[in-house]
Amino acid sequence: MRKTVGIIGLGLLGGSLAKGLTKLGTYRIIGYDHLPEVCKEALKDKVIEDIADGPGQVISQSDIVVFAMPPDINAQTLVKYKDLFRPGTLVTDVSSTKKHVIKAVEDCLPADVHFVSIHPMAGSEKGGYAMAKADLFQNCAWIILEDRQSPHWNEGNAKELEVMGQKLGGRIEWVPMAKHDHLLATVSHMPHVVAAMVTTVAGNDQYGDLRLRLAAGGFRDITRVAGGTPSMWREIISGNRKEVLLALDALAGQIEEIKQMLTKDPSGQALESYLTRARTIRKHFQEIIDNTANPK
Amino acid sequence: MRKTVGIIGLGLLGGSLAKGLTKLGTYRIIGYDHLPEVCKEALKDKVIEDIADGPGQVISQSDIVVFAMPPDINAQTLVKYKDLFRPGTLVTDVSSTKKHVIKAVEDCLPADVHFVSIHPMAGSEKGGYAMAKADLFQNCAWIILEDRQSPHWNEGNAKELEVMGQKLGGRIEWVPMAKHDHLLATVSHMPHVVAAMVTTVAGNDQYGDLRLRLAAGGFRDITRVAGGTPSMWREIISGNRKEVLLALDALAGQIEEIKQMLTKDPSGQALESYLTRARTIRKHFQEIIDNTANPK
Repeated sequence: MRKTVGIIGLGLLGGSLAKGLTKLGTYRIIGYDHLPEVCKEALKDKVIEDIADGPGQVISQSDIVVFAMPPDINAQTLVKYKDLFRPGTLVTDVSSTKKHVIKAVEDCLPADVHFVSIHPMAGSEKGGYAMAKADLFQNCAWIILEDRQSPHWNEGNAKELEVMGQKLGGRIEWVPMAKHDHLLATVSHMPHVVAAMVTTVAGNDQYGDLRLRLAAGGFRDITRVAGGTPSMWREIISGNRKEVLLALDALAGQIEEIKQMLTKDPSGQALESYLTRARTIRKHFQEIIDNTANPK
Repeated sequence: MRKTVGIIGLGLLGGSLAKGLTKLGTYRIIGYDHLPEVCKEALKDKVIEDIADGPGQVISQSDIVVFAMPPDINAQTLVKYKDLFRPGTLVTDVSSTKKHVIKAVEDCLPADVHFVSIHPMAGSEKGGYAMAKADLFQNCAWIILEDRQSPHWNEGNAKELEVMGQKLGGRIEWVPMAKHDHLLATVSHMPHVVAAMVTTVAGNDQYGDLRLRLAAGGFRDITRVAGGTPSMWREIISGNRKEVLLALDALAGQIEEIKQMLTKDPSGQALESYLTRARTIRKHFQEIIDNTANPK
């Protein structure tokens, strides 16, 4: 018999997971979203086999429960329905920050309920079920958060999520739970704030309109994610406040370094070395994403 | 008889100008590049009608002389060949920063040599003649720098460059010369440094490789221009040092503001307002570039 995967939240990530897993055919998929029209559409699309009447029904009827709402809501929902989890169930979440959900798991779940957290690094400034697609995870990092000290950890479940990620086309990355929020602050959350800050510096005064009319492709790309949903990013960033603050400090440190360079070395030689080092790192990153674009 | 446009430097901008103008057929195009193979290729591509043997020949044989080398080299070349400019010649440049070339014009050119500076906001992290294309300027801002106080200013010449930009598909923007370097520092030069800084923060320590493996589309776009040519950006940025320093200060001010928000308002409400304002600005920018993508 096929296992049941229950997905709570059918937005960009949850919806894409439902679409991708339905295509694989390995699982029976059920789902719930707080927007009734999204549930109906997912059922009509044959992306879920059944609509649950709420998170509780998903939790009590699934072998694998996927929390795919914003991080805070995932944690609150897990606490609210804590008595409905059955022994042996695999609970997972796809949150961008893990602090709240981990605390909820530790506080509320009995040890015989398994928890293995994942984070598929797929996203877009345009969210929602309408943007969800079966191949969203293709070539994206599919992070499995190693937390072997946790009483909820289960190696077999972790492997099952690894296989799931591979089948959906993800690049599997095992990351220690304790490192996740720090790493994400530097490659995702702080850069998101940067996009908003650069946009603000350019557009926020009486010359704003003129500046925007002059801006070109570099500005367009650097600021793209500033078009993302503020409420979602508020949750992600304030949920990872401590690490985002440290990452902003690191950025401020770089600004100070560049200012020193420009002040003490007007010829720009030191700046050129800095830009050359950055380009080497950027090229390495491009190789990482290009290799997966053309898998062996 | 067709006027002669002489282009010194057949890289991304100069080469694209040669290709675009050749397609229009209005002018006779001659050119020079310090790389002999580029000159030969441009001649073979019928993108220039003649190869000049050096900048001097371009200057003495053209009605419109376009300086399309890096900003410092443009200025140095203008000084070196100052005696070859003929009265009535229109001299222009496509530099990213204007300080050096303006000084060279003021110091060296007789008042009967006209100078109107332009700045087509088209670029790429991949430069060079190989990347040049006739439609590079399509939908890009084509900045004409107004400098009516200058003895070299000529309104008719400025209009001629305006028409040239329109025919090449650019969006014409008249910008006071005195404002150019400030505006560009905020929408181009500082953002370029930001891309390098974000790349450095992510990739520059023992977790660098892991971070890069976890990074997704937001990071890819924010850091794209960090793949640009360091020597070119060194010239652009150190040539506009004062304004870039001010723009970096403005960014540091935003970092301080965000840090205060995250520290004093852990719920993230203030941050959400900030992100909402930034999104409004970003949407306005998107409308600007989309309107030109679908011109009336």
